[in-house]
Amino acid sequence: MSTPSSFAQLPGPPYYAVIFSSHRTLGDDGYGKMAEQMIELASLQPGFLGCESARDAEGFGITVSYWSSTEAIAAWKSNVDHLVAQDRGRRGWYEHYQVRVARVERAYGKPAT
Amino acid sequence: MSTPSSFAQLPGPPYYAVIFSSHRTLGDDGYGKMAEQMIELASLQPGFLGCESARDAEGFGITVSYWSSTEAIAAWKSNVDHLVAQDRGRRGWYEHYQVRVARVERAYGKPAT
Repeated sequence: MSTPSSFAQLPGPPYYAVIFSSHRTLGDDGYGKMAEQMIELASLQPGFLGCESARDAEGFGITVSYWSSTEAIAAWKSNVDHLVAQDRGRRGWYEHYQVRVARVERAYGKPAT
Repeated sequence: MSTPSSFAQLPGPPYYAVIFSSHRTLGDDGYGKMAEQMIELASLQPGFLGCESARDAEGFGITVSYWSSTEAIAAWKSNVDHLVAQDRGRRGWYEHYQVRVARVERAYGKPAT
């Protein structure tokens, strides 16, 4: 059985996805904190549709947030950048992540959505 | 420190992403097997650029594969569908997943890529 709460409930395409990949190490758990804070900020933004996230036992994680428009993503990114800037003096964890912004053109699954 | 092998090394946008979300339960590990088989098939396909994958302790996983074109994705999907059809008589695990196909328009990260 699946875990419904883990799957984002989204409208039909097109919409936008922000794919955030990060790695959290035993020595620095800031990567995970960053991902959590990014999603906390995202959920407060107009145009936020939902998100899905998973992090493995080795500390590598993928968080995908879904958005109604690139404008909504830009507003979110400005907040994330501010968050990162605030943390810059404390830690260097923000140095290790990848972000990819994509336009979702097709979506399908089982059970059908 | 990051784990370089966990991050896909990709060319600059545009390219395409297939975001595969699935849930593996204690009672049926087929979801994880499906994800692994999908990537095994992907790596054999022309136009496959790379992939990133993470699954959490609760069994929810996200695998993102990256492609040079929608044609490459279509060829891969036909193989995946065949795989699923082969397994259909054995198990129902293929009933619980979500697939989203997206065109990556921007990519950035730290260290810069």
